[in-house]
Amino acid sequence: MVATLFPLDLGSIMHHLWLMLLPFLGLVSVAPAEKGLEFPRYDGKDRVLDINDRNYRKAMNKYSMLCLLYHEPIPDSKELQKKHQMTEMVLELVAQVLEEKDIGFGMVDAKKDAKVAKKLGLDEVDSVYVFKEDRVIEFDGLLSANTMTEFLLDLLEDPVEVLDNALELKAFNRMDEEIRLVGFFKNQESEHFEAFKEAAEQFQPYIKFFATFEKTVAKQLTLKMNEVDFYEPFMEEPVTIPEKPHSEEELVAFITKHRRPTLRKLRAEDMFETWEDDIEGIHIVAFAEEEDPDGFEFLEILKEVARDNTHLPDLSIVWIDPDDFSLLIPYWEKTFKVDLFRPQIGVVNVTDADSVWMAMDDEEDLPTAQELEDWIEDVLSGKVNTEDDDEEDDDDDDDDDDDDDDDDDEDDDDDDDDDDDDDDDSDEDEDDDDDDDDDDDDE
Amino acid sequence: MVATLFPLDLGSIMHHLWLMLLPFLGLVSVAPAEKGLEFPRYDGKDRVLDINDRNYRKAMNKYSMLCLLYHEPIPDSKELQKKHQMTEMVLELVAQVLEEKDIGFGMVDAKKDAKVAKKLGLDEVDSVYVFKEDRVIEFDGLLSANTMTEFLLDLLEDPVEVLDNALELKAFNRMDEEIRLVGFFKNQESEHFEAFKEAAEQFQPYIKFFATFEKTVAKQLTLKMNEVDFYEPFMEEPVTIPEKPHSEEELVAFITKHRRPTLRKLRAEDMFETWEDDIEGIHIVAFAEEEDPDGFEFLEILKEVARDNTHLPDLSIVWIDPDDFSLLIPYWEKTFKVDLFRPQIGVVNVTDADSVWMAMDDEEDLPTAQELEDWIEDVLSGKVNTEDDDEEDDDDDDDDDDDDDDDDDEDDDDDDDDDDDDDDDSDEDEDDDDDDDDDDDDE
Repeated sequence: MVATLFPLDLGSIMHHLWLMLLPFLGLVSVAPAEKGLEFPRYDGKDRVLDINDRNYRKAMNKYSMLCLLYHEPIPDSKELQKKHQMTEMVLELVAQVLEEKDIGFGMVDAKKDAKVAKKLGLDEVDSVYVFKEDRVIEFDGLLSANTMTEFLLDLLEDPVEVLDNALELKAFNRMDEEIRLVGFFKNQESEHFEAFKEAAEQFQPYIKFFATFEKTVAKQLTLKMNEVDFYEPFMEEPVTIPEKPHSEEELVAFITKHRRPTLRKLRAEDMFETWEDDIEGIHIVAFAEEEDPDGFEFLEILKEVARDNTHLPDLSIVWIDPDDFSLLIPYWEKTFKVDLFRPQIGVVNVTDADSVWMAMDDEEDLPTAQELEDWIEDVLSGKVNTEDDDEEDDDDDDDDDDDDDDDDDEDDDDDDDDDDDDDDDSDEDEDDDDDDDDDDDDE
Repeated sequence: MVATLFPLDLGSIMHHLWLMLLPFLGLVSVAPAEKGLEFPRYDGKDRVLDINDRNYRKAMNKYSMLCLLYHEPIPDSKELQKKHQMTEMVLELVAQVLEEKDIGFGMVDAKKDAKVAKKLGLDEVDSVYVFKEDRVIEFDGLLSANTMTEFLLDLLEDPVEVLDNALELKAFNRMDEEIRLVGFFKNQESEHFEAFKEAAEQFQPYIKFFATFEKTVAKQLTLKMNEVDFYEPFMEEPVTIPEKPHSEEELVAFITKHRRPTLRKLRAEDMFETWEDDIEGIHIVAFAEEEDPDGFEFLEILKEVARDNTHLPDLSIVWIDPDDFSLLIPYWEKTFKVDLFRPQIGVVNVTDADSVWMAMDDEEDLPTAQELEDWIEDVLSGKVNTEDDDEEDDDDDDDDDDDDDDDDDEDDDDDDDDDDDDDDDSDEDEDDDDDDDDDDDDE
């Protein structure tokens, strides 16, 4: 459609390209009259290396960190080629922004550079691997310049934060969304602190490690010398890791075993990893906007239920705050047929995104903790599932979806809704034609 | 530099273009094997109207909201043209994502469409104006697809949130970063609630309005019938707006007068507006990462000082959490010559971004509330300022910058640092040449 709007000349190809590139863009830096808030613009310099057999070792030695995107072979399709190049450009922008931080960036082709990939242990295509000293950190999150930059800056920080006083302890206590460990050690030189630090490096920046050397802080945390507590997100009480003092290996083993929490918040930096960590192909997903009173209320109920049921090994709920993923809200509303202006909880089949949602008539009709617990029990027992409603539209389980307005496009896919509004838009399309011609004249 | 790497053919022009477009990109959607997290990609359909004399009225009538970017005339420079088109594409993506929400999008050219702009009251170039019923809402924030989408979705919500119970009140109490108003009214039909709602619409979504119809909630808020409390960010006690009940106009006048807080957090949705709201050309800026124990501790001290000094009309501190603006961290570190891994407070001249920062030897050396207050007093009296140190490198005010590693590029500008690393990078550049040729062969 776009192609027909422009005469086939260079200007048109450029315009066409810009349109095609849209999915990858994020922000536009408007130069303000004031100074102090200037977003970086790419300066055109190539910083991302094409890693191959000849240069990978040198790159590893040169930088304090090397950040490699392991990607599919360059595809034949123009569309996929563009996608690939945009990914490269996200890396280019991040490389430019972090230029002073001694981080190298590179691309490893899964086919052309298969040998290097094997040597380096890269296995998940489309993941980013960061090499830092003797560690490899996989990044399986949102490939945006923002998220990548924040992730890499986090990796440059100390793996263990030290809590010196009551105020810093307060900061620690507020972070209830995170998996956290905190230990009490004699001092920075303690061998047990050293082991704790080594373990911290294995999980940086995904799991937060804290330590204190102060008796008063330790007392408030009810920590004995060399003791380490493990805090599951949203739980009130931590678990003390048994049999102190701990070697690095013991700590790593314990964390690895207890890593999947009963309730976790979806985060940009590991969203795909979290989504892949489903239980038998499904996720229990809760949407709740923490900044919204109803969302907050629902979340408090959900936390209560999670706390009461944290002993169930198969219970793992993903909480998504829609505010963190604005661009996905309409996609989710359409795919799951729910209204995300209010809280929702449902079961999502990660293979086909089929889903079923708990019935709530309106914002005033939030479930009680008991009702939510009963519903979750029904999910775990298979009584509520995503397959039953595929046949019959209504059963007595209250699990029919409450899609008020969306019935009309029940079977629509994302790809083919251009047609829907053709009638409404025909006038605008004419206007657009005129406008685009105007634009061309200006070029 | 890039241009020399590619033979001048269509492939090269495309590649070159992609490189040039980099500053505007944000995220790349990697298609996961699982379903449920698919970021939208632009489908190539034109949705953004070129608004002109002939079509603006129709567009206003057609949609429940119309979102117009008021932009500079299309420039002659290719570089600026690209920037303009990228801005348009941010709008295109937002328009696509919000397609079902009945929002129109358009561009208004400051020169070509001057007549329409005047009719519509657009005055600040590069701002976005949203027309909703009889209101115009200016957006002077980060022009990213994410921020725009969140902003527009917020505008679709009710302007007043109702607090029904103790849990929802808890959500309200947590939002201490926001300017908030809360009123107690008889019921939804109350004329005073109506006036409150009308006032809320004037400030949506920048200022949050809450109401309760429940006596128990009102009691906890110490609100009498028809009383409205104004909460300045980070203050412990609200101000009761005098002389209840209030008309819409009285509420608007009070808020307008008290809108600039003693301490405010920089937000993407109005960051440029906040930055423009300087006091005599300067901002007191505090950098503190709330998730970091030291940052949190510093912030608590800062809040205490702000509370104790909220009576000073000329005191307005901008708190920036670096986590919210990852891409700007290296820019700020370079411009302001500070280490943003730890808390900082300084004075920034918004005309030239010249700045002076309070001395803190290390993380353990956070100022006490008294020291911070003394320093702020020195800023307000002009004793600490950004001009003094331009001549002499060291005075007795402790305001010399603690730029440990950055001395070498003291006078460098952002634009000309390509040269710095030419020596180090020459090997990589050769590699890049090879790699880029490879890429071209693949295309």
